[in-house]
Amino acid sequence: MAARYEHIAAELRDEILTGVHPVGSQLPSEAELAARYSAARGTVRQAVAVLAAEGLVGSRQGARRIVLGGERSQSFAELHSFAQWARSKGHAVGGEVLGQRRRRAGPAESVRLGTAEVLEVLRLRTLEGEPVLLERTVYASWIAPAVEELPPDCESVTQALYDRVGLVFAYGEHLIDAVAAGTEDARLLGVRRGSPLLRQRRITTTQEGRPVEWSDDRYRAGSVAFSIRNSIGANPLTRLALP
Amino acid sequence: MAARYEHIAAELRDEILTGVHPVGSQLPSEAELAARYSAARGTVRQAVAVLAAEGLVGSRQGARRIVLGGERSQSFAELHSFAQWARSKGHAVGGEVLGQRRRRAGPAESVRLGTAEVLEVLRLRTLEGEPVLLERTVYASWIAPAVEELPPDCESVTQALYDRVGLVFAYGEHLIDAVAAGTEDARLLGVRRGSPLLRQRRITTTQEGRPVEWSDDRYRAGSVAFSIRNSIGANPLTRLALP
Repeated sequence: MAARYEHIAAELRDEILTGVHPVGSQLPSEAELAARYSAARGTVRQAVAVLAAEGLVGSRQGARRIVLGGERSQSFAELHSFAQWARSKGHAVGGEVLGQRRRRAGPAESVRLGTAEVLEVLRLRTLEGEPVLLERTVYASWIAPAVEELPPDCESVTQALYDRVGLVFAYGEHLIDAVAAGTEDARLLGVRRGSPLLRQRRITTTQEGRPVEWSDDRYRAGSVAFSIRNSIGANPLTRLALP
Repeated sequence: MAARYEHIAAELRDEILTGVHPVGSQLPSEAELAARYSAARGTVRQAVAVLAAEGLVGSRQGARRIVLGGERSQSFAELHSFAQWARSKGHAVGGEVLGQRRRRAGPAESVRLGTAEVLEVLRLRTLEGEPVLLERTVYASWIAPAVEELPPDCESVTQALYDRVGLVFAYGEHLIDAVAAGTEDARLLGVRRGSPLLRQRRITTTQEGRPVEWSDDRYRAGSVAFSIRNSIGANPLTRLALP
């Protein structure tokens, strides 16, 4: 059974998504919400913290929070898994492993992943049958056997690894920039060499902080964008100069 | 041109933020880094001092430093203001207004900004004298007079608007993707037409949720990346399919 604060969070979420609390308006104060739900202030605070974590409301400004979003934010799993994301948006998704091999980790890889051997996988992802994403993923050796057992057209590797070995991806670090398509990129994504790609390099770890994979993902320009919300109170987004 | 130690600092920073040197690990010693970069110990020491000042590595423990990493030192203002960010990283920054005019808001703009008239500004930003960023910003009419009074080479518009009218940018919504350079982009950024640019579209509001500006910022590929950390508990990053 869901806790009281989850019920309150669900009700407030519905109200935000249906425009009862429009974007830019102030959410009622904790005291007002506590009175309205006949709940303790602490319970209300928990509910509001859930909405803040989802990016629906901002951090506190005095007694109130600003409503930031009508759009429901994606879960971590949905962001991590291309297939789970695409399906949730109603897209027809496809995936295909184009190459897979075990090899010794390079110096940077062995530090990043903590293993001397890695499994390198090249996957092409499609939306509505069109190639949009090329994933070059390097897995730590401890998870390699489970990845190797997946069918080459496995749609959601994230889901399959959870179902098979209980693996939960819990933390991600993402570096996002633009690059020109190389020869292999261009051939597989069906674009001209040198044309723009959105690149997402990411490392993902378990809840214990154990690195699972390092990936270089390249999206065809015009197919996908990343959206981030931030505030004075919480800024997860940083800018880096490239060397 | 960036000094040698700045290049080394940038490379080490990138490695820390992408997990090559995980939090809690030891950074290679000065002697090892000097060998790796074929640089003098003094140069390496300068580079590491920059990272220590940023809070990415701790103070010395014997011959080595511990990676503290990840603790993001960029504030919201630093992300929002190109000049504040660049200066904090030790870059020589420049800015120039190339065009500025009042006009009627388009339908999307009037909804976004809540005003019937807008001020459109085209700004070129440089790092170390090289053009890296083209900002096409549209301001709500209530802030337009303050923006028009700024000198055309004003480095930090964020800082100047705070100093002059007490404006605080408090919430941001960012959409990040890759685009091909158009004719104007190419000419002003000094790249070929069609070459990759990292695009950041953003809307920024006051603490009361009042929209101030809508901007389309384009970075030359290879100059800047965005970094985001997320987790199962807090995921500010979402993926969107482009129409």
